[in-house]
Amino acid sequence: MNRAFSLMLIVPALIVSIGVGSSRADELRATGDLGVVVERMTGSLLIVDQSERAAIGRVEGLGDLSHASVVFSPDQQYAFVFGRDGGLTKVDLLIGEIAGRVVQSGNAIGGAISDDGKLVAVSNYEPGGVRVFDASTLELVADIPTGSKTIGLVDAPGRRFVFTLWDLGETWIADFSSGMPQITKITGIGDRPYDALITADGRRYIAGLFGEDGLTALDLWEQQPTPERILAGYGRGEDALPVYKMPHLEGWALAGERFVLPAVGRHEVLWVDARTLEETGRTKTHGQPVFAVARPDGRQVWVNFAHPLNDTVQIIDTPSGEVVHSLKPGPAVLHMEFTPRGHEVWVSVRDAGRIDIYDTRTFEKTGEIAADSPSGIFFTARAHRTGL
Amino acid sequence: MNRAFSLMLIVPALIVSIGVGSSRADELRATGDLGVVVERMTGSLLIVDQSERAAIGRVEGLGDLSHASVVFSPDQQYAFVFGRDGGLTKVDLLIGEIAGRVVQSGNAIGGAISDDGKLVAVSNYEPGGVRVFDASTLELVADIPTGSKTIGLVDAPGRRFVFTLWDLGETWIADFSSGMPQITKITGIGDRPYDALITADGRRYIAGLFGEDGLTALDLWEQQPTPERILAGYGRGEDALPVYKMPHLEGWALAGERFVLPAVGRHEVLWVDARTLEETGRTKTHGQPVFAVARPDGRQVWVNFAHPLNDTVQIIDTPSGEVVHSLKPGPAVLHMEFTPRGHEVWVSVRDAGRIDIYDTRTFEKTGEIAADSPSGIFFTARAHRTGL
Repeated sequence: MNRAFSLMLIVPALIVSIGVGSSRADELRATGDLGVVVERMTGSLLIVDQSERAAIGRVEGLGDLSHASVVFSPDQQYAFVFGRDGGLTKVDLLIGEIAGRVVQSGNAIGGAISDDGKLVAVSNYEPGGVRVFDASTLELVADIPTGSKTIGLVDAPGRRFVFTLWDLGETWIADFSSGMPQITKITGIGDRPYDALITADGRRYIAGLFGEDGLTALDLWEQQPTPERILAGYGRGEDALPVYKMPHLEGWALAGERFVLPAVGRHEVLWVDARTLEETGRTKTHGQPVFAVARPDGRQVWVNFAHPLNDTVQIIDTPSGEVVHSLKPGPAVLHMEFTPRGHEVWVSVRDAGRIDIYDTRTFEKTGEIAADSPSGIFFTARAHRTGL
Repeated sequence: MNRAFSLMLIVPALIVSIGVGSSRADELRATGDLGVVVERMTGSLLIVDQSERAAIGRVEGLGDLSHASVVFSPDQQYAFVFGRDGGLTKVDLLIGEIAGRVVQSGNAIGGAISDDGKLVAVSNYEPGGVRVFDASTLELVADIPTGSKTIGLVDAPGRRFVFTLWDLGETWIADFSSGMPQITKITGIGDRPYDALITADGRRYIAGLFGEDGLTALDLWEQQPTPERILAGYGRGEDALPVYKMPHLEGWALAGERFVLPAVGRHEVLWVDARTLEETGRTKTHGQPVFAVARPDGRQVWVNFAHPLNDTVQIIDTPSGEVVHSLKPGPAVLHMEFTPRGHEVWVSVRDAGRIDIYDTRTFEKTGEIAADSPSGIFFTARAHRTGL
């Protein structure tokens, strides 16, 4: 633990600019309705205000933000941004500046924050493992080498992090509840797990497999969870896909009593009983789905699609499982984020350089915001949810 | 609508004091980890910071706060406090002052905020009905007289409020999605409904009945919901109780696949299948439960009890349904509120003049805060949940 690591360096928080609006300390502002938009081409972050439907600041100098993800501190003042290049950047949303930055590996893939908000973890491809940092100072707290590319890192209740080893087919649970991590290792997850998720209640951890059909589920309420194979039909598609085309598993949408998830390599979403994890049906869609996101009340599911059909969004009605509406926001719809109680949805339209905002009841557009190649949209309400 | 109402008056926001710490505008502060504690004897509100485990301000002059409840604006800057005397007070958590106050009826019982945060509704005993206010200005937007004491007011997705008529046994849905409310009336709810709740997904509305055994459920996903009687065994107890002793239904705790709720007049909690709404078992408890609150991950349920056994809290393990721990925080434990991801719980101990904070994993006390006859504790994360 805590071994020296040559790639790690603290970058002074100098490269900062507020290009859009102002988000200065002298302006009183609450943080419950803020959010950030990842601008992937420029390595910058747009700070947005949901109530104003506006950008209030831009922070630059975050490195390679392709496939970036974001978590928030419990007070919703700070965003922790995980870049593909191993950069972990802490952004102060109230001041609109970088509060700290560490380049902690050469190639990283996502991160998480502990339930008490004290620890931030990053999973790394190279060197393979998980590094855990003090959320306040960004100092290294623990280094957990795994001897494998490490994916599917999530937080779980009880100051735990859960992550999975691509090369070894193992899932590890690192329990930080009593200081240094206690590691529980679970073998037999399957052939080359490529991504994983945790359900919103923090109970079930589900890994997708690149090397075989089906998925593997763990019940984290068990003392020593046992891998259970589920959804044997959830395969690599008619034609085996390269790993970068396998669907993200960043959170299955719970819609009523069912999860809904993108099919692999097909123009369909799958409905899965939330209790038995068995497939209960499918809905034909416009293209190959990338994200199927449930409105927070589960009454609707919004779906976007892979290239070249990625100018379209479809809305599925949960009780009937039917597509009830289609929208064409513009070229390259990359991500969708609902307001916390679901009255609006924000959609990033990368090649139009725009965020579009829709009323989820009328499907009318209620606003738009200019953004530079926007991809992921993350609202601060995620701070209070497990696994987001 | 909008008829003049003699009791309504705007009270200037003069009666304000900051007795504890400081929460001034010149201090930069995020709002995601704030909360308020109702001090019922003094009609004041303590503003608290979860991360600091401390009070940061006190606001006085809120009138009669017996059975007060609180909702929050989406940005988590404002608390709307509903007093028993018909007072609706808007408190600015960042400045620590009253931002507005209306005494809108003679006798009120709870309120709600619309999913877009624009409307605040209050349900009134006298005169019976619901009044809806602009959340920004506290101006009256709509007056909905019902000809009955009105209870069980909640927000539902789609800019709707749902509430129930004690005298008439009806539930009304007021849909504000297109300006003035469209009212849907559902008859046959039962004999003297005394309280109601909405499930966290905003789908099911469940009313408790004073005049008969059992409860009544509505599926709000239906265009014209039909009352369904459930839990026929959920009665008034061996000895019929007065209405003020019937259990609050302010939100059934979802623990795994089951709801858990206080039995009526018995030393038990009931387990109810979340899908079928049928009883699946009971757990014997120390006393007659008042609140059975699930930790956000559902893994534990914390229970407090009615006088004279109200010095105790019991913790039930969800999978086994067994009591795994008991605490005696002190005299008159009135309320419990979990941090949003459940690592800690705050407990109000009224007659000790204290809020106690516990680690939910170790059950160790991690902090305490002095408070004047504390009752309800409300954290700002409620802003992003339906029905809270």
